[in-house]
Amino acid sequence: MRDVSEALRAFRAEAAILSDLAAAADLLSWDQDTYMPPGAAAGRGEQEATLHALRHGRLTDPAYTGLLDELEASGLDPAGSDHAMVRVARRTASRAGRMPRRLVEELARRTASARVAWAKARSEDRFDLFAPELAAVLELKREEADAVGGGGQRYDALLDEYEPGATAASLAAVFEPLKEEQVALLAAIAGSGVQLSDEMLRRAYPVDAQRRVCEATAASFGYDFRRGRLDVTAHPFAIGIGADDVRITTRYDERFLNPALFGTMHEAGHAMYEQGFAPEFHRTPLAHGASLGIHESQSRLWENLIGRSLPYWEGAFPALRAAFPEALGGEDVESLYAAVNRVESSLIRVEADEVSYNLHILVRFELELALLNGDLAVKDLPAAWNDLYRSYLGITPPSDALGCLQDIHWAVGLVGYFPTYALGNLVSAQLFAAARGALPELDADVRSGDFATLLGWLRSNVHRHGSRYLPAELIRRATGSELDSRHYVDYLKGKYGALYGLA
Amino acid sequence: MRDVSEALRAFRAEAAILSDLAAAADLLSWDQDTYMPPGAAAGRGEQEATLHALRHGRLTDPAYTGLLDELEASGLDPAGSDHAMVRVARRTASRAGRMPRRLVEELARRTASARVAWAKARSEDRFDLFAPELAAVLELKREEADAVGGGGQRYDALLDEYEPGATAASLAAVFEPLKEEQVALLAAIAGSGVQLSDEMLRRAYPVDAQRRVCEATAASFGYDFRRGRLDVTAHPFAIGIGADDVRITTRYDERFLNPALFGTMHEAGHAMYEQGFAPEFHRTPLAHGASLGIHESQSRLWENLIGRSLPYWEGAFPALRAAFPEALGGEDVESLYAAVNRVESSLIRVEADEVSYNLHILVRFELELALLNGDLAVKDLPAAWNDLYRSYLGITPPSDALGCLQDIHWAVGLVGYFPTYALGNLVSAQLFAAARGALPELDADVRSGDFATLLGWLRSNVHRHGSRYLPAELIRRATGSELDSRHYVDYLKGKYGALYGLA
Repeated sequence: MRDVSEALRAFRAEAAILSDLAAAADLLSWDQDTYMPPGAAAGRGEQEATLHALRHGRLTDPAYTGLLDELEASGLDPAGSDHAMVRVARRTASRAGRMPRRLVEELARRTASARVAWAKARSEDRFDLFAPELAAVLELKREEADAVGGGGQRYDALLDEYEPGATAASLAAVFEPLKEEQVALLAAIAGSGVQLSDEMLRRAYPVDAQRRVCEATAASFGYDFRRGRLDVTAHPFAIGIGADDVRITTRYDERFLNPALFGTMHEAGHAMYEQGFAPEFHRTPLAHGASLGIHESQSRLWENLIGRSLPYWEGAFPALRAAFPEALGGEDVESLYAAVNRVESSLIRVEADEVSYNLHILVRFELELALLNGDLAVKDLPAAWNDLYRSYLGITPPSDALGCLQDIHWAVGLVGYFPTYALGNLVSAQLFAAARGALPELDADVRSGDFATLLGWLRSNVHRHGSRYLPAELIRRATGSELDSRHYVDYLKGKYGALYGLA
Repeated sequence: MRDVSEALRAFRAEAAILSDLAAAADLLSWDQDTYMPPGAAAGRGEQEATLHALRHGRLTDPAYTGLLDELEASGLDPAGSDHAMVRVARRTASRAGRMPRRLVEELARRTASARVAWAKARSEDRFDLFAPELAAVLELKREEADAVGGGGQRYDALLDEYEPGATAASLAAVFEPLKEEQVALLAAIAGSGVQLSDEMLRRAYPVDAQRRVCEATAASFGYDFRRGRLDVTAHPFAIGIGADDVRITTRYDERFLNPALFGTMHEAGHAMYEQGFAPEFHRTPLAHGASLGIHESQSRLWENLIGRSLPYWEGAFPALRAAFPEALGGEDVESLYAAVNRVESSLIRVEADEVSYNLHILVRFELELALLNGDLAVKDLPAAWNDLYRSYLGITPPSDALGCLQDIHWAVGLVGYFPTYALGNLVSAQLFAAARGALPELDADVRSGDFATLLGWLRSNVHRHGSRYLPAELIRRATGSELDSRHYVDYLKGKYGALYGLA
């Protein structure tokens, strides 16, 4: 038997190859969304499939899994990063090894057809066109859950891919009290008699000026353009092609400032997380976010806790007004702050404000859990969806297109994914509260456009660790306590209580 | 033993994987030159090395070479494309298998340091800084030639990588008479008393207008932007990321029209070759040019035989003048035609006109052959270089920076590569003569901006075959005769005799 250091060297060498293969696949994907000529689509699909298959083959190769066996038996220090590296590598290898090839292929085929059916169903507002495809996807996801296993509910097996360590039960325990608070707050705002307008955000915003503002904003936060770039895509995203190359995208609407400005803050938040991984973790299994929820906490923190805060705009508004003199020349910081924080129960998740956003998620969480478990039949989804919107948000979707057909997630097999958006909000507030405790000058720094102290705190407490810690432990280490929705509720109540004159 | 069709299926499946790996590596490379953020360079180098190593491992895997053995023994029809596919695959696999890993690594290290030394030597005009590095590179290239073998001279083993089937002797047989003709023609032009000016090409050419003209020009030739795109890089190139995604780049000089305009024609010529490979060859070893010389014939044909011809400008000049009214408003087509065909013995290969270009190549061919064989010591290179420039071009480089240090090729190990540039010129004229014979309306079509008949002829006779035929056979099939420099000499004499009033 080799000694441990030799096994570790062999493991790191293979992990670096796996990481480079993933990076190449990520570049193929980024390019497909940005600069790839349209006629290349079919060939690109083959190239991506080949790279994924090569990676899958290596992940399930007995030479590699044997190395993991050897390292697991070698008594690595459980507190050390090598131990964590092996844990994360095993998790990925196990999922890859447990999924039968037939199931992987069926899922690929089925989600491809479901995606097409979904797009047609949404555009024609005909749920019946999508229902059989959704039922088939759900059946395959049940098979996936059974194959992956894990000892808990089927939903937990799926959720674990996105949020290691979380379960349906642990989520419900966090979400239930949250729901009550958010429903009550939304109702109080609706009954406050106060109406904030976002009309000023829907004036003429020339795209060139938006681009300059977005670049300057991301750079001011600390997004490193030397190790990243900003491009335009229909659906914005952040993607890491290695930790020294984390790119973001946005989209510009010349009649609405929000998509590009807050979208860029959001994607820059994701990207700064990956740019902050410890250099010694690059090209290892630890060069990933701890979970999608933790990842989302970073995007939401910069987009909302900073980007929609009064101290931020007290500092940043003059430059924004100067960039858009026609739209904002006659406005002041208080009216802008009110405009970017307008609350309104609305039908569409991706346009939702902070107060209602999580409620959109809770609807989806409850429904996908019931669908997967068979407690809700696919045919009954539209009615159940509308019931929950009425109950939580106080509105009824006038159509399925604006209701249960609005998101692509289920069509492409993302079941157990939605909750990570809500977790991101909760964690963002809990981290921000901890940062505020550690950084007494935080508001003043933000007001003066100095984000280095906050970014430094996030680097030390979150970013550099990559996926070394499970989300629950990362939160405990960074904030001193378990995940607790109280921080987010307090944040919402404080901020929106003031904005809407609530008691 | 499997039957042949099963072995062919297995071979094609592996060839598709090899092709996809190469495509991913090509995208990494394209991205590095276009949009990659600067801080990503080190990680990108690792990603590229990993993909090349994976490809090398598969090319030399006994499971793959055994498949080639099996297919070679299976009696495939020698006239069929499957036979050619196996031939090309074997050639690549053999080169990969014969190169010792130590030598590959030493070459990578040495050319990396030689490249740095070369850049410094050139910028400080100090050949002594580069000499020891060049000597070391040459020694490694001798080792490479011995490892690769082939039964001929060392030079032939290196040349064969770029120009399958060619040898130093076969090149010399073609180049010797060519040299005499081109030296004489250049001297006649110098003694003609006629001076053409290219001043009109060095006026103000706004970059935006140049971009539009370049795009329109490439599209008019038949470059398919649905399966390609045009970007900006310091050193222009064409690169195929699969045959449905062949991208080109250019560079804009707002005080000189030539680099972008003729550079785009050149790269579009390369790219149209690859866009024209038969669809059934995609993702196979045949989806490559037959050789670098044949590849260069396509770029030079569009750049020079079309792009610097009178019929072309009789058709295209009005649009060019309209795109650059300030620079060209007062000019006519005859003066433009003269300007783009100005001949002058000059020091720098990449700026050379058609009449002197091949002489730059012949200098390099003779010198690299002598260097590799040990007939010329590295320390004597500058003097030998200057002697040949005096003898062939009638000028003496005033410095090594403008002499033997001007090209990067030898520093990065490209020995046996230069001749393909001259071959490209010769083949372009021979193909064009054959096309003219087959297409009696060619000049009229070109004049009217209709390039479909010419492109169609090239598609049928050159492009679609990919690397199915060796260059010599491809030329024979397309033109009915062996490679013959007469076509190029006739072309030059006819065109420049008229321009310079020679007898």
